[in-house]
Amino acid sequence: MLTIADKTFRSRLFTGTGKFSRAALMEQALLESGSELVTVALKRVDVQNEQDDILTHLHHPQFHLLPNTSGVRNAKEAVFAAQLAREALETNWIKLEIHPDPKYLLPDAVETLKATEELAKLGFVVLPYIHADPVLCKRLEEVGTAAVMPLGSPIGSNKGLRTIDFLEIIIEQSKVPVVVDAGIGAPSDAAKALELGADAVLVNTAIAAAADPVAMARAFRLAVEAGRLAFEARLAPPTPNAAASSPLTAFLDQL
Amino acid sequence: MLTIADKTFRSRLFTGTGKFSRAALMEQALLESGSELVTVALKRVDVQNEQDDILTHLHHPQFHLLPNTSGVRNAKEAVFAAQLAREALETNWIKLEIHPDPKYLLPDAVETLKATEELAKLGFVVLPYIHADPVLCKRLEEVGTAAVMPLGSPIGSNKGLRTIDFLEIIIEQSKVPVVVDAGIGAPSDAAKALELGADAVLVNTAIAAAADPVAMARAFRLAVEAGRLAFEARLAPPTPNAAASSPLTAFLDQL
Amino acid sequence: MLTIADKTFRSRLFTGTGKFSRAALMEQALLESGSELVTVALKRVDVQNEQDDILTHLHHPQFHLLPNTSGVRNAKEAVFAAQLAREALETNWIKLEIHPDPKYLLPDAVETLKATEELAKLGFVVLPYIHADPVLCKRLEEVGTAAVMPLGSPIGSNKGLRTIDFLEIIIEQSKVPVVVDAGIGAPSDAAKALELGADAVLVNTAIAAAADPVAMARAFRLAVEAGRLAFEARLAPPTPNAAASSPLTAFLDQL
Amino acid sequence: MLTIADKTFRSRLFTGTGKFSRAALMEQALLESGSELVTVALKRVDVQNEQDDILTHLHHPQFHLLPNTSGVRNAKEAVFAAQLAREALETNWIKLEIHPDPKYLLPDAVETLKATEELAKLGFVVLPYIHADPVLCKRLEEVGTAAVMPLGSPIGSNKGLRTIDFLEIIIEQSKVPVVVDAGIGAPSDAAKALELGADAVLVNTAIAAAADPVAMARAFRLAVEAGRLAFEARLAPPTPNAAASSPLTAFLDQL
Repeated sequence: MLTIADKTFRSRLFTGTGKFSRAALMEQALLESGSELVTVALKRVDVQNEQDDILTHLHHPQFHLLPNTSGVRNAKEAVFAAQLAREALETNWIKLEIHPDPKYLLPDAVETLKATEELAKLGFVVLPYIHADPVLCKRLEEVGTAAVMPLGSPIGSNKGLRTIDFLEIIIEQSKVPVVVDAGIGAPSDAAKALELGADAVLVNTAIAAAADPVAMARAFRLAVEAGRLAFEARLAPPTPNAAASSPLTAFLDQL
Repeated sequence: MLTIADKTFRSRLFTGTGKFSRAALMEQALLESGSELVTVALKRVDVQNEQDDILTHLHHPQFHLLPNTSGVRNAKEAVFAAQLAREALETNWIKLEIHPDPKYLLPDAVETLKATEELAKLGFVVLPYIHADPVLCKRLEEVGTAAVMPLGSPIGSNKGLRTIDFLEIIIEQSKVPVVVDAGIGAPSDAAKALELGADAVLVNTAIAAAADPVAMARAFRLAVEAGRLAFEARLAPPTPNAAASSPLTAFLDQL
Repeated sequence: MLTIADKTFRSRLFTGTGKFSRAALMEQALLESGSELVTVALKRVDVQNEQDDILTHLHHPQFHLLPNTSGVRNAKEAVFAAQLAREALETNWIKLEIHPDPKYLLPDAVETLKATEELAKLGFVVLPYIHADPVLCKRLEEVGTAAVMPLGSPIGSNKGLRTIDFLEIIIEQSKVPVVVDAGIGAPSDAAKALELGADAVLVNTAIAAAADPVAMARAFRLAVEAGRLAFEARLAPPTPNAAASSPLTAFLDQL
Repeated sequence: MLTIADKTFRSRLFTGTGKFSRAALMEQALLESGSELVTVALKRVDVQNEQDDILTHLHHPQFHLLPNTSGVRNAKEAVFAAQLAREALETNWIKLEIHPDPKYLLPDAVETLKATEELAKLGFVVLPYIHADPVLCKRLEEVGTAAVMPLGSPIGSNKGLRTIDFLEIIIEQSKVPVVVDAGIGAPSDAAKALELGADAVLVNTAIAAAADPVAMARAFRLAVEAGRLAFEARLAPPTPNAAASSPLTAFLDQL
């Protein structure tokens, strides 16, 4: 079981709600994924409208909502967005995403640290999306982050884990859960992240943009379970060459 | 369902029996893996002794035995070993492994082609272990191979898939099932092979040498299912950059 | 020619002075490298002693000294160290390295931004060592950095370029020179960095820890030239398959 | 100095003559590359015409011609082509390329071994283009090959070295020179091959298809020199983490 702040999760697969072609398809995929933490962009929630379509589809007891601040460009906007989200969705959990550059949506380390500190003081459970930067992770810990969410590769790129060398250091050093976020393009990437010792992964585009999102959601569910199991069962390390042993050869030599 | 020659398999995870610390542990791990095709080295079977220990542990209806010729160094020895195996184990299936070099146990293309041709004529169902060589795969097809088993990396190395560029070509061109054999070191590697379109994988060392082989067997089972599902559900391709869309930004700009 | 602040460089290979077995060997290697910018740790300079050994060996007209702040843990210490360095070495150039973690020596994004801003205001030419973080690079630009020095992999690791996906974005977006620092383990890594469009590389351990540092220095010199030439001559992109054209086949078919 | 059969080479960069936009440009690029062994497809030589354009441009004392059999599909055609080439170009050197598949131009292991044996008996100096297959390399040695030319990645793909794990084994075991052929897409790839201990590389597309082939030829020349120098000067191995040493930290702590 994974614990973050006051919640425990059986599933180590966190999911996103963007880019699905239809809300009903999203709902079905998320149910199939087994996910218990579902991030939703504030931009997608009509905060004035209680009948907002997407929320209806997320109304299942197993889904905890994790509003995200996607679209904000600095700490001040992020704090404001988090407060809006808390009111609208009645949760103090917030996925902090601060990306001033609209092209690659990469996170801003300095503003993220500032916003995390402020939001933690305001009683939020903060899960910040960050570069795979081990030192930043430690500083986020110091100011009260609930978890760290280092990226595997640029958001939406499906390029997989391009930051393994740094994820390994983060996992080695972190005292809070490590959730690999962004870039995970295939179940094998998710399995790999868990094998390395990540506590969870967040997947969105790779499920939503698959030809069959529901089947892909199931594939990710299995892969995450596989990766966690493998981490616990401990993989044998790579070896330089084969351990040959061939009694048959000896037998053949005697013929 | 995967079909090779006259058999169909629900599981796309083939397993090996070497390197387990105890036969009972091997049995439990193989059962947990869901595998239906289990390779066993002739050297490990005492062909004179019907009470041979390893075979007792493989005596389950779901397990088809796939004797392998590990230890032979050329086509002649391989054909002889296959005939021994057919008599001893009452199966005409044979995993053909011809590796003259005891250090890396890499396969010999020329002798493997020769032995495959001869064994196919003798009525064997031949599954040859080979380098990830697309042209050789086509030639094996021409002489009647039942499947091709290109390597991911050197046998027992746990290095994973180091031959992806060539596996992709083999999968694209092959008319017989493609089973990735050797080098698969983690469930994520197995998932990746299936995602690429491989029909199955063969895993031995990574399960047998794990700290907990039974749990690792289960991890591989799930990973292989995940990889196949993902292949069928079709992954979205990598993209150069994020598709930004941020109504929230526009909203914040209006404040 | 590469221009940073008020200086121009013919050589795009910057070098470090640590880890050499003898100062005379260091001198010979640096001369052979063709480097015109040589970083030296304050810790290695005895600021009270004008006869300091290492400086004697760096007393060549082609060498510009780039003192670095290695060993400081925050912006305040960095500014202090930079001021010491300016006095001791009579240069306002400073390589800013702030790494609170002594195990991996990874840089602190937040403190580095703060120190860069302050040092730029104090008239320093600042070259900060940072994670390969594209957003941080833009922020450093805004506060007056003279260049950015993203890492290839952890300092001293010789692992090469593990941050290519992010270096490409940095190079695409940067208005100041991009110098790849840390982790470059072989001339091929240096060539690759230049091929990607980096303006320069900084190499230390890979030269100092080679069996023959002088020959290795020459190898890096050539590799950096090769990489830059290739960048300017523009590489053809990878292609999915061969462009076959075989009149000989047609000819043979006619026989 | 590299020796193959009866010839010694100062340059470890072998080059090809295909895909250049103009023959004069090819000539200039090859001269700039410093190459002393230049492969030319029989298909490009008009064997009936002594004034054949391409040969005129290769008429320099430093260029040894290495006719290749590109376009043949089996050993028989290859032997015939080699004999044609010997007569037309007055050299018993032959680059053996047998690729039955026109899409990827990958080599045929079995036919290549057969042709090598036959050609060696006929007095040819045979340089066969092959998959990076260590066992095949040993067998080619046994039948008298003058060198082995394992591929880095599919011909013309510019994908670089995708077979490193196998090239390392080949280099470790080979008694004849190892020339990495095919797929080298950038000078950094060439440098890397030499750093691994390859004796030479053959480059064609990456030079011919560059925006400026002459400058690119020079880049490859430098990279190959760099890679060889680095191999001889012995690279320090990768290390898991930094070797921290910071007297400055101690000093700062005392303030």
